[in-house]
Amino acid sequence: MSIPCNPTCQPVLIAGSWQAAASTESFRATDPNSNRPIPRQYPVSGWADVSAALDAAVAAYDRLRATDPARIADFLETYARLIDDAAASLVDAAHQETGLPRAPRLAEVELPRTTGQLRLAAAAARDGSWTLPVIDTRNGLRSCYESLGPVAVFGPNNFPFAFGSASGGDFAAAIAAGNPVIAKANTSHPETTRRFADLAVAALAETDMPPATVQLIYRTSHADGERLVGDPRLGASGYTGSRQAGLALKGAADAAGNPIYLELSSVNPVVIAPSALAERLDALVDEFTHSALLGTGQFCTNPGLVLLVRGPASDAFIQAVRDRYAATAPGTLLSPSVNQSLERSIDTLVQAGARLLVGGEPVIGRCARTNTLLSVTGAQFLGDSAVFQTEAFGNAALIVVAESIPQLVQVIESLEGSLTGSLYTASHAEDDEYHRLARVLTPRVGRLLNDKMPTGVAVSPAMNHGGPYPATGHPGFTAVGLPASIRRFAKLTCYDHVREPRLPRWLRDRNPTGSTWRCIDGDWSTADVP
Amino acid sequence: MSIPCNPTCQPVLIAGSWQAAASTESFRATDPNSNRPIPRQYPVSGWADVSAALDAAVAAYDRLRATDPARIADFLETYARLIDDAAASLVDAAHQETGLPRAPRLAEVELPRTTGQLRLAAAAARDGSWTLPVIDTRNGLRSCYESLGPVAVFGPNNFPFAFGSASGGDFAAAIAAGNPVIAKANTSHPETTRRFADLAVAALAETDMPPATVQLIYRTSHADGERLVGDPRLGASGYTGSRQAGLALKGAADAAGNPIYLELSSVNPVVIAPSALAERLDALVDEFTHSALLGTGQFCTNPGLVLLVRGPASDAFIQAVRDRYAATAPGTLLSPSVNQSLERSIDTLVQAGARLLVGGEPVIGRCARTNTLLSVTGAQFLGDSAVFQTEAFGNAALIVVAESIPQLVQVIESLEGSLTGSLYTASHAEDDEYHRLARVLTPRVGRLLNDKMPTGVAVSPAMNHGGPYPATGHPGFTAVGLPASIRRFAKLTCYDHVREPRLPRWLRDRNPTGSTWRCIDGDWSTADVP
Repeated sequence: MSIPCNPTCQPVLIAGSWQAAASTESFRATDPNSNRPIPRQYPVSGWADVSAALDAAVAAYDRLRATDPARIADFLETYARLIDDAAASLVDAAHQETGLPRAPRLAEVELPRTTGQLRLAAAAARDGSWTLPVIDTRNGLRSCYESLGPVAVFGPNNFPFAFGSASGGDFAAAIAAGNPVIAKANTSHPETTRRFADLAVAALAETDMPPATVQLIYRTSHADGERLVGDPRLGASGYTGSRQAGLALKGAADAAGNPIYLELSSVNPVVIAPSALAERLDALVDEFTHSALLGTGQFCTNPGLVLLVRGPASDAFIQAVRDRYAATAPGTLLSPSVNQSLERSIDTLVQAGARLLVGGEPVIGRCARTNTLLSVTGAQFLGDSAVFQTEAFGNAALIVVAESIPQLVQVIESLEGSLTGSLYTASHAEDDEYHRLARVLTPRVGRLLNDKMPTGVAVSPAMNHGGPYPATGHPGFTAVGLPASIRRFAKLTCYDHVREPRLPRWLRDRNPTGSTWRCIDGDWSTADVP
Repeated sequence: MSIPCNPTCQPVLIAGSWQAAASTESFRATDPNSNRPIPRQYPVSGWADVSAALDAAVAAYDRLRATDPARIADFLETYARLIDDAAASLVDAAHQETGLPRAPRLAEVELPRTTGQLRLAAAAARDGSWTLPVIDTRNGLRSCYESLGPVAVFGPNNFPFAFGSASGGDFAAAIAAGNPVIAKANTSHPETTRRFADLAVAALAETDMPPATVQLIYRTSHADGERLVGDPRLGASGYTGSRQAGLALKGAADAAGNPIYLELSSVNPVVIAPSALAERLDALVDEFTHSALLGTGQFCTNPGLVLLVRGPASDAFIQAVRDRYAATAPGTLLSPSVNQSLERSIDTLVQAGARLLVGGEPVIGRCARTNTLLSVTGAQFLGDSAVFQTEAFGNAALIVVAESIPQLVQVIESLEGSLTGSLYTASHAEDDEYHRLARVLTPRVGRLLNDKMPTGVAVSPAMNHGGPYPATGHPGFTAVGLPASIRRFAKLTCYDHVREPRLPRWLRDRNPTGSTWRCIDGDWSTADVP
């Protein structure tokens, strides 16, 4: 079988070299600020590219298993430095491809977050506590997490840096664990991803790492994408994006027994108890409007569903938010497909009976839509709760007005899994009302917030950026926060009476760093094995 | 729809009461010592039973979330005491239904292991360190694992106590996390499981726990089993058993986004390097024969595949093992279906070209088959490696004789995931040979052993009874060993600026036990939050 290579397209990065893709098709990205295609062409790789990347990744994985984690950390830090040095070029590309503002968003918020995350991943790789070493001296058993094999990373459209396939959280976690990454660029920002991969190549060379530790393809057919995540050469996959595409990949990975970590969709309910509205209505309007329209609403943790109880204060809240939505210039959406999908979601909600309070109009000349607010009653929501949980990714939100607290509880009980759930009560409220609502909200969310909007996702060891299905594919893992996010891309291995000199460094008698946390005979310690 | 109840059958345990099953079919178990059916009849539950159990479990889950973990621990300890008190009755039932020897196996090994495991689970529930609390005081974030919802447990045929649906490791882990269990009895030992559930009811009453914390059904149609694991009311499932049935359940659970933990099948390769045979051939024959025929070979960790390098010592090893197999009276198999499945597996291996060295004969009058040893060359194995990894569950093993160390490495590289892999080398060997083999074996197994057979599975915090697919469904989890096994049945929840008095006990400022390990601002500690 001969597959033509495509010399008019940008090259793919396979086995350490930029090479013409084995492809017959190509695609271009769109500048959402002008709605015009960007001239540069990128290949749709055929299976030959994917298979070659898998072979190279398997060989790199074998070498990485024998590589000192300090070298992996050096690579991550070198890469972070090169990214900082190339910030202007990366910001340019991302601004053109995503429409996100150069500043503060790209240059001052997302880029530092990205390099900070890479440096935290480097520290975690060097320290090794992420492997959760458990040592049972009486039984001669020692176990820890260790690398798993090549990881395919499918990044989303909305964070070209911090969740990027070749730069973001999944990438950093997979590499820190000692796995090579096959990055599948988000097709809305191929040039941004290519520039990152170019810097990764330089950082790999500078730190003498296996060149195939980072590889890049831009796009495949759906069938080849599914074949990739189910390939026996692959260790695991990380995917952030639309529910439909994610579930197709999940089906293929599950059928093959390959782990896949997904971040699919989330409406992120914000429950505002009457006591909170009574106390601080104006502040809540400010907080909600700011969070809901931040980044044109294009965050996984965007508060897309507000739950209120009927009453004059709720009416006033809705009216004030409506006015703010009308008065705020709509931001630019990431791509024509985000715009279309937002339109479809708003239509779906309206068709199901939601009242359009404001917005829903297209904006001419760029990817944008006026800020959109909809509302339904609690009874309406309960009558068709699956449809009313349709994610409207972008600058749109649905307000549910329940009849009463008991109906509000019912509405919460009808919710699918979300990444987050926020619960606002009065500052000095008795906690009965709180507990009644939290009891039903908590099992449905990965992160519960008090009196706080969900859009800030700190890169903290205590973060959970995850949640019950269908927010993610498994309720026990976080995609943000080190070191926990690293353990997604790892296998647990027990060493049973393995001779001490043969053990992995984290399990040897001597604490390999002097500061690695290990659980020795039931106690966490940084000491050597006694 | 009216579903007839079946009064001639044993009752099922739903919502705290023993009641006639909604069923139209029934089944009986077989005494494998006589090949005769045991008269008592058990119902095949229809969906009405399963759905009623799910509803009751959801209500129990809600109550358990507000239950002091110390009470859950009291239940587990009370249950362990009642099991110890009823040991004779449990051993009688299990002996009749499984053919396993009353002593030492059932009374002296498996029963104490089971109650010991329940007591360890109690200690873990009381202590709370299993929740891995992570506290970030600077960011106002605190996270831990917490209960998930009702757990369906499908126990295997080979450990009626220690892996039993209502008594074993999955049961203990799910309850310790604070989840109710819907036990699906293994159909080879329904009476044993019923007696356990009866004791659980008494222990629940004695400790004032929600009665639906433990429920029992005996059997469902395949379709209803799949519907159960995919039901949105369910939190997760644990399954130990045949690969075929397990994969059907996995498909249904995956499609619904419900976690399922599987222990499917494993050939547990034992690699014996030439240096080890040269040093201690007789001891290796003893060790292998003992481990391979223990429990008539019916362990998940039975060493079913031995990898040797051609030479006079290997010939002598094979001859000696063959003689021992011929001279050892075959044990009783667990059931007619195990016997049939063993026959099929041996046929498959022989049809594929394996040489039958000894055994393969049926034994008249009970469920048994003569101890069976087969062999293939390395080249044969490589030519049809999937077929030669057919698990022959029972007293049968396949020896692979490679031409050379490089071919041995190739054979190991062709292996699917297993629970264990053993590697024997000479006592004072240079480690080059070891590392060459361990490098390819380790990624393929959950537990790597040195100079040790895999059949002992200590209940230790450092144990991993898990491994890469298809040994299990996910390489990051263990089914044995506390507290890690508990985290399978848990969701991660982050509390973001949640007011301190509202936090779960493990995340409050004050260490709730004074001894719970928590990671506070990067350091593991049993102290209060400063």
